[in-house]
Amino acid sequence: MDKNILGIDWGTSNRRAYLIDQSGACLAEHEDGQGMLAVGGRDKFGASLAGVLDAMQLPADVPVIMSGMVGSASGWQEVDYLDAAVPLEQLPRHLAAVSDPAWAGRGYIVPGYVYRNGASADVMRGEETQLLGAVAQGHRDGWIVLPGTHSKWVLLRDGVIQSFATYMTGEFFAMLSKGGTLSAMLAGDSADAAGFAAGLDQAARNEPLTNSLFRVRAGVVSRSAPPEQAAATISGLLIGAEFAAAARAAEGQGITVIGSPALAARYEIAARHVGLQCAVLDPHQVYCTAVSQFLKG
Amino acid sequence: MDKNILGIDWGTSNRRAYLIDQSGACLAEHEDGQGMLAVGGRDKFGASLAGVLDAMQLPADVPVIMSGMVGSASGWQEVDYLDAAVPLEQLPRHLAAVSDPAWAGRGYIVPGYVYRNGASADVMRGEETQLLGAVAQGHRDGWIVLPGTHSKWVLLRDGVIQSFATYMTGEFFAMLSKGGTLSAMLAGDSADAAGFAAGLDQAARNEPLTNSLFRVRAGVVSRSAPPEQAAATISGLLIGAEFAAAARAAEGQGITVIGSPALAARYEIAARHVGLQCAVLDPHQVYCTAVSQFLKG
Repeated sequence: MDKNILGIDWGTSNRRAYLIDQSGACLAEHEDGQGMLAVGGRDKFGASLAGVLDAMQLPADVPVIMSGMVGSASGWQEVDYLDAAVPLEQLPRHLAAVSDPAWAGRGYIVPGYVYRNGASADVMRGEETQLLGAVAQGHRDGWIVLPGTHSKWVLLRDGVIQSFATYMTGEFFAMLSKGGTLSAMLAGDSADAAGFAAGLDQAARNEPLTNSLFRVRAGVVSRSAPPEQAAATISGLLIGAEFAAAARAAEGQGITVIGSPALAARYEIAARHVGLQCAVLDPHQVYCTAVSQFLKG
Repeated sequence: MDKNILGIDWGTSNRRAYLIDQSGACLAEHEDGQGMLAVGGRDKFGASLAGVLDAMQLPADVPVIMSGMVGSASGWQEVDYLDAAVPLEQLPRHLAAVSDPAWAGRGYIVPGYVYRNGASADVMRGEETQLLGAVAQGHRDGWIVLPGTHSKWVLLRDGVIQSFATYMTGEFFAMLSKGGTLSAMLAGDSADAAGFAAGLDQAARNEPLTNSLFRVRAGVVSRSAPPEQAAATISGLLIGAEFAAAARAAEGQGITVIGSPALAARYEIAARHVGLQCAVLDPHQVYCTAVSQFLKG
């Protein structure tokens, strides 16, 4: 490909587009709320994508590489998962061409990955593109953590996924905030340092979340715990559950977090709490690096 | 007390009233949706209770014993928790008189219990009355399980609570059904035997629910697991988390479940799955037995 390229991180609720030139530099960005759910049906994705090109004033023939839920069964077109054994750097060879004839030769979807472990499976869509960017930036080994609605912990070895696990951390936090026994407490400050540390400590005990989360409420109503720490304790329990499960394997190693500053800061605190080194990568820069890999590919 | 007595299990969403005569027999029952949330404020409980007496055509001077969220900070009047060390059979001595003068001498609230374990606390309101009934029926020792929105696992020794733990099993199931990543799958048959067993087995591995629940979805979208088993697998994961945590302590002993037939059946299957004996008590009978203890007290 001998021209600019548009990369779109097209998720469930939002999408973000990055125009990359041949040197890999990001020339322009665009973000809107037209995630998969807002598009409103498979046959609407073409027009929705044309809207991005319009908004960014791009020529109609710019090649577009899309990652995320756009490639799911509820997206534009379902793209099969790659097996985790396929090296991330081979992603450019596995792009799926959009079958909509209006986008022939210029629309491509990045496949997600499936990791099978015995009868159990885990999947990602979108994070593989971030991982490709991280690998291209030299992070070929060790634990990469992508916090969010569905946090991913990925173990890399020489640019190949060894294993990964998903945690519904952000979704649980949002769900518990919306209603039910814990919602009133979650209106509080979820960054309170002492409360967050208490949640991390409790998470290390590996008790079921259905129990440990209730005990945050029980602590408040029995006046055993300060109510102003409750929201942060719940945040610590949910994030701590990721560390409790994954950090055993990460012992003695560091982790690299690809996340927004606010979220990454929370994970840095949690990592320090359990004695893990923690580096942070900017998700936008990582995504741009990934798109530039498709330009080469 | 030398007359009939009315016991009311007054919860968050519903209430159920039982008229008990001096022999302990249940003469009449009444159930409605006027739970704590529907009453609409502390000063409305008196009129709401008068409505029950009207509906059951009872004399205004019938003594009323109320248990459950009616005694919480958001209920009629907050009643302090008893320490778990207080024997259940002493509950009749610890009733709180309703302070509303219109109900003086005839309205009483049963206190809940708090269990403190180091810095951690767990609480119950309402279940203590069921437990008193179970003790009066001769279940003075071992594990009593009260499944529901907030399942309780209670260890008794000679009619005294040794420890207890709450699991937000029913609340989580309802919350996950209402929306989010798993809700579509939860429209399926949550009683599928193979799916339920798979969830129980997976729960025994003690992985965080934020991860194991996501993997049910991942199994379906990666075509590793049959979609028609997913709802039951989620049920098995949530109920199995209770067994995984509590059944270690229950090893070699049986459990006694106080629950509706449908829910108790689910727990009987789970108990058998992990090799525990399981007896079932009818919650209405147990409640009536408990109220008759207040008549004696």
